[in-house]
Order: sequence, then C-alpha cells, then structure tokens
Amino acid sequence: MARRLLAEGLGSFFLFATVVGSGIMAQALAGGNDAVALLGNTLATGAILLVLITMLGPVSGAHMNPAVTLVAAARRELAWRDAAPYIAAQLACGILGVWAAHAMFDLPIVQASTHARTGPGQWLSEAIATFGLILTILGTVRHRPAWVPATVAAYITAAYWFTASTSFANPAITVARSLSDTFAGIAPADVPMFIAAQLLGAAFAALTARLLFDPAP
Amino acid sequence: MARRLLAEGLGSFFLFATVVGSGIMAQALAGGNDAVALLGNTLATGAILLVLITMLGPVSGAHMNPAVTLVAAARRELAWRDAAPYIAAQLACGILGVWAAHAMFDLPIVQASTHARTGPGQWLSEAIATFGLILTILGTVRHRPAWVPATVAAYITAAYWFTASTSFANPAITVARSLSDTFAGIAPADVPMFIAAQLLGAAFAALTARLLFDPAP
Amino acid sequence: MARRLLAEGLGSFFLFATVVGSGIMAQALAGGNDAVALLGNTLATGAILLVLITMLGPVSGAHMNPAVTLVAAARRELAWRDAAPYIAAQLACGILGVWAAHAMFDLPIVQASTHARTGPGQWLSEAIATFGLILTILGTVRHRPAWVPATVAAYITAAYWFTASTSFANPAITVARSLSDTFAGIAPADVPMFIAAQLLGAAFAALTARLLFDPAP
Amino acid sequence: MARRLLAEGLGSFFLFATVVGSGIMAQALAGGNDAVALLGNTLATGAILLVLITMLGPVSGAHMNPAVTLVAAARRELAWRDAAPYIAAQLACGILGVWAAHAMFDLPIVQASTHARTGPGQWLSEAIATFGLILTILGTVRHRPAWVPATVAAYITAAYWFTASTSFANPAITVARSLSDTFAGIAPADVPMFIAAQLLGAAFAALTARLLFDPAP
Repeated sequence: MARRLLAEGLGSFFLFATVVGSGIMAQALAGGNDAVALLGNTLATGAILLVLITMLGPVSGAHMNPAVTLVAAARRELAWRDAAPYIAAQLACGILGVWAAHAMFDLPIVQASTHARTGPGQWLSEAIATFGLILTILGTVRHRPAWVPATVAAYITAAYWFTASTSFANPAITVARSLSDTFAGIAPADVPMFIAAQLLGAAFAALTARLLFDPAP
Repeated sequence: MARRLLAEGLGSFFLFATVVGSGIMAQALAGGNDAVALLGNTLATGAILLVLITMLGPVSGAHMNPAVTLVAAARRELAWRDAAPYIAAQLACGILGVWAAHAMFDLPIVQASTHARTGPGQWLSEAIATFGLILTILGTVRHRPAWVPATVAAYITAAYWFTASTSFANPAITVARSLSDTFAGIAPADVPMFIAAQLLGAAFAALTARLLFDPAP
Repeated sequence: MARRLLAEGLGSFFLFATVVGSGIMAQALAGGNDAVALLGNTLATGAILLVLITMLGPVSGAHMNPAVTLVAAARRELAWRDAAPYIAAQLACGILGVWAAHAMFDLPIVQASTHARTGPGQWLSEAIATFGLILTILGTVRHRPAWVPATVAAYITAAYWFTASTSFANPAITVARSLSDTFAGIAPADVPMFIAAQLLGAAFAALTARLLFDPAP
Repeated sequence: MARRLLAEGLGSFFLFATVVGSGIMAQALAGGNDAVALLGNTLATGAILLVLITMLGPVSGAHMNPAVTLVAAARRELAWRDAAPYIAAQLACGILGVWAAHAMFDLPIVQASTHARTGPGQWLSEAIATFGLILTILGTVRHRPAWVPATVAAYITAAYWFTASTSFANPAITVARSLSDTFAGIAPADVPMFIAAQLLGAAFAALTARLLFDPAP
C-alpha cells in the first residue's frame, strides 16, 4: 500500500506541477496570444500523462484523480477502504506539485486564484469532460489495456480545446489549481460547482460504460 | 445492435463536438491568426479520433462517418440493413454534439453557417480527402489492424492542412457543421456538392483498395 | 510488381501533395509568422508519413524516395532492375501530387519555384538530413521493424527544424518541389546540388549502418 | 564496445544538433514570439529522442546523457569501467553536433553563450527535471520496456514547458549548450550549478526508483 500511495503522490505531484508550470511558461512567452499559450499547456499536459500512466499505472493504477478513484471503488476494482488514502495522496502531493511549480518560476509559493470560471457553459463543460475521461479509461481498459496511457493523454489533449472550461475533469486538480493565481487557476468560490459537475459526469459515465463495454451478464 | 448504435452515437457526439468546440475555442483565443487556430483545431481532432476509435472500434467499428459505413456495406463487412441505422445514429448524435459544443461555449444552440465553401478546388479537396481516408482505413485494417486508431488520427491531422477545404471527408459531419456559424461551419447551400465529392472519393478508394490491398483472387 | 508500383505512386502522390499543400495552407493562414507556418507544415508531413508507411510499407516498402530505393538496391534488399521503375513512379506520381495540391488551392497547375536555397549551409543540411533519414530506416528495421512508420515520421518532424534547409532529404521531392512557387519550393537551379548532397549523405549512412546495425560477419 | 561508443556518439551528435539547430530555426522564424519558438524546439527535440532511443537503445542503451550513464553504473547495469568512455563519447560527439548546427545555419562554429540561467528557481527546475527523467527511464524499463523511446520523448516534451529552465536535465548537453550563443545557450559560468542540480536530482531519483519500481527484496 505504501508503494501505491507513493505512486499516486508522485504522479499527482508531476501532473499538477506540469499543468500549472507549463501554463506559467506558456503565458509568459506567448505575448498575449492565448491560443499559442494553450498549445504549449496542452502539449505538456498530454505528454506527462502518457509518461505517468505508463510508469505508474502498473503500480497504483495511476489515478491521480479522485473521480477515477471513486469510479474504481464503485466498480469494486479498488477496495473502498483504499479510496480515502488514495484521494488524500492525490490532493496533498498535487498541491505540493503546484507549489513546486511556483518555486521553479520564482513566484510566491502560496497564492489564491482570482480567475473566475463559472456559469452553465462551464459546468456543462466539466460534466462532459469528466464523462468522456471516465469512458475513455473504462473503454480502453476493456478493449486495449496497453493503450490506456495514450488514450488518456489524447483525450485530455482534445478536451483542453473542445470544452469551454479547458477540461479540469479532476476534483483534486480543481482544488489545487485554486491555489495558483496563474494561467491555469480557478477562483476558490468556483471550485464546488466544478467538482459537482465532475462527479455527475463521472457517475453518468460509469453507468454508460456498463451498457457499452461490460460483458453481457 | 443497440450497443453498436450507442457506440456510433457516442462516438459521433464526441467527434463532432470536438471539431466544432475546438474550432470555437481556437478562434476565440488565436487573436486573428488562423494558422494558430487551425493548429488547435487539428490537435484536438486528431487526438479525439485516436481515443474514439481505440475504445469504440471493437464495439461498432467506430465509423462515425456514413462514407465509411457505406464502403463497409459495399465490402460486405457490414450488413446492408445495418447501414441506415448506423448513419441515422451518426447524424442525430453528431448534431447533438454540435449543439453541446454551442451550449458549452454559451452560444445560441440552433445556428446556420454562413461560411461559404465552394468551387472546384474545394470539391477536388473533398474527393481527395475522402479517397485518402478510406484508403487509410482499408490499408491499415489489412496490414496492421491495431494501428487503425493512430493512422486515421494522423491522416485527418495531415488532411486538415493539405486540402483547401480542411478535409471534412464525412457526409454526416458536413451536414452537422452546416448547423454551426463558427470556425468549422459550412453554408448549407454548399453541403450537397461536398457530399457528392466525398462519396465519389470514397467509391474510387474502394476500387483502388481492391487492387492495392485485397488478397489476389 | 504492378501493385508495388501503384503503392509507390500513390504514396508519393499523397506525400508530395501534403508537403506542398500544407505549406500553401500554412503560409496562407499564418499571417507572416513563418514559425507557425512551419509548425503546420511539419505536423502534416509527419502525420502523413506515419499513415503512408503503415499502409504501404507491407506492399512496396513505401520508399517514396529514390535515395531509399538506391540504398535498398545496394543492400540487395531490392533487385537492381526494380530500382528504375520505383524511381520513375515516385517522380511521376509525386509531381502529380504537387499539381493536385495546386489544383486544390486554385493555383496555376504548372509553376517553377523562385525560392533560392543554396550555399554550404544548405548543402551540409541536406547531407546530414539524408544521412540521418537512412540511418533511422536501417536502424529501426533492424531492431524494431513495427516502429518504422513512427520513427521515419518523427525523424522528418525533427529534421524540418534542426536543418537549415528544412530537410528535403529526397531527390524526387526536390525535383517536384522545384515545380511549385510556394512555401515548399526550391529554385530549379538549386536542385542538382541538393540531390548531390542527399546522395552523399545516403551513401555515408549505408556505410555507417554496416558498422552500427548489421550482424557481425 | 566500439559499436556501443559509436552509438552513443552518433546519438549525442543528432540529439545536441537538434536541440541547438531547432532552437536557431525556431527563433529565426518566430518573429519574437518565444512561445511559438519553444513549440518548434519542443516538437523537434521530442521527435528526435523517439528516433534515437528506438534505433540506438538496443545497441548502447542510447543514454546520450552522463546522468543516465552514472545511474546505470550505480545500478550495476553498466560496468563502471565503461562509464568514462560513454561520457567522453557523449560530450565530444555532442559538441560536434552543436558545431554542425552552427555550420548548417552559416553561423560561426565556435561560440560561447551569453544567456544567463541562474538562481534558485533554475536550480530547482534542473533538479526536478532530472529527477523526473531518471524516474521515467527506470519506471518504463521496469514495466513496459518497449515504450522507453516514447516516454522519454514525452517526458522531455513536457519538461521543456513545466520547468523554468526548459529542462536541460543532462550534464553533457549543458556543457555543449554553453558553446552556442543561440536560443538554447547557457552562459558558461552558470554550467556548474546546473550540473550539480542535475546530479542531485538523478541520485534522488535512483533512490526513489528502488522504493517504487524494484522488486521487493
């Protein structure tokens, strides 16, 4: 169990540091062209997901996302008693990753975002984004397990662009990004509705996956 | 059959939402540089194709495209009686995907495109684009079936750039994109010639594939 | 043999159409930022190489390049008597591909480039570019044949950027690109030295590959 | 051993030429938008890593990096007496690669960088970057060895963006880049602290990998 929590923690550290750090780098260099900044942010995030899921998947499943952990528990692929430590490791180490990004870029470590992200379009975006992410994981695990790192990386690459919220799709990263007043930030007051939409999308995906991927009973 | 139609529908929903949604996002952020916008649009479309074909291919074939469905029927790889429901699912759920993209970006749901796309260069583009797409599918299925998701994604990535029409190559998405007055739109009056060119290219590809890939009789 | 020549011809058609067509598209949209244009050109070229080598490699080897064909003949992996028709198909169908790109973009079909590409830096670039391409092919074929489409695509992706000539690395495409007065063009007078440098690089790569990859005698 | 050193030398030549050459090309074309320049630099570097590790990994391990060589020796996967020639080949041929890039772009061959890269944020960046690189290698080798070329390429793609130093993560390339007064350069005076941070990160990664990936004793 210690090894699995170490994997969840390290993975969340690098994932969250990448999301926030590449956003800082991209915005600093892009000279006001936010599409160029989002290209850099997307490329980095997709690439690190491929890496982390390849190397940590065999250890802990490489969830790095409470929505994934909860779905795994609901599907009895993870013991319920393991879900809480998984989520705690994701959140704690992910926040350390955000702080490490701040430190690397010589920014104040502790921040709070002022980036408002709210309204029905944003919430619908998060529900659809998380629905698609969970479906991607469950469908690929079912049909081509070796391709999970590639499909999750590709899914997030797409979702950064096709959703209006740039697809957080992860309750832990939503909390962690509220602690960064940078490109990737989200105002703390907007966090609860994001998480609610994400969990709704995840639950709906778990039901859909039964119809779509699970062996007929 | 219900499961296969669900797969076609969900795949078309996400594919069309991605094409339209990433176009909206890219254009909104790109500050008038349409090459940067097309980079974002391309990256998202290629990535979601990799995902959808990997996870839905084993369920329904992951056509998400009436041209692909018709070629499959002509090659007797799909029963002719299944072609109509396949195409209906692609069209209906794909349009829902376009509308979902509008909703996520807080745009009016029901729109009609005013983006003129017409003339011999455009029609030739669509014929060549669809010819290449069908050839890609049939050639990869024949020689390296596990690589179909990757080659289709890569083909569309290339075709967004090497054709003058940015490669629709799909009658259903052509109809659906006529319902979006955004980056990816096409004026309704220009739809019929696009579809005609696509079907011509697809038919020619099916013949070429016989010479090129099918086992000698 | 007819099937193999069809494969070489179709592959060269799509490869050369992509190189030239994506250059036209990228430059038209990039608003003068040539790095953005080269990003689009690179993405399309790398992607189509992955597709073409995957689907046509098992048919003809998917050379689409006289330098590759000559090395294959010198290594007795292709009969010498097959080299001439291979090269003829590459050149003839490749030029058709360039013309198809012009037609798709509503440009005059027959053109001659005015883009000067000359001098020691350019020639060194082409020698190194072709040296690396041949080494990539022979090394990947030796150690991981299933990855040839991916490594050739990735190599050209890199070489578009690390060489001063944007890496033609292919005598047939050099001739064909002299027939296009667009982003990807090269003035006809500069073609011979490019081809000489490419063949020199290819020959040196063939020798190096013996030391590096071939089984000890 | 000669073959292995040839592989290390050729790999380092192409890797370092790509890092520096693509930086020159990208900056020359990007018109002052450094995010666009970094996109080109990233794409080329990631792509060439995929190529070089695929074709040279089976020959020499394709380290191209003294930090990787030292960790391999410490893990007894490489004989200690081989480490010095490995590192000498990386450094010597890598510097030749930098000089080749200068020659291709018609720049003075021998240069010294004036690009200051110093301070705690930069050092922390290099430590984290190298820590992640070594972990990526050891984790992928342990769980999915065929994916090492892809994960190392993807890791560096991400690390170019999520670290404030654009992730050198390689003592030999740090020295070589001090000899190039271009986009990728680093002032010679700043080299020692970079190397110290890299070796610290590598050592810490080697310890972490024992806990995370090695079979329980």
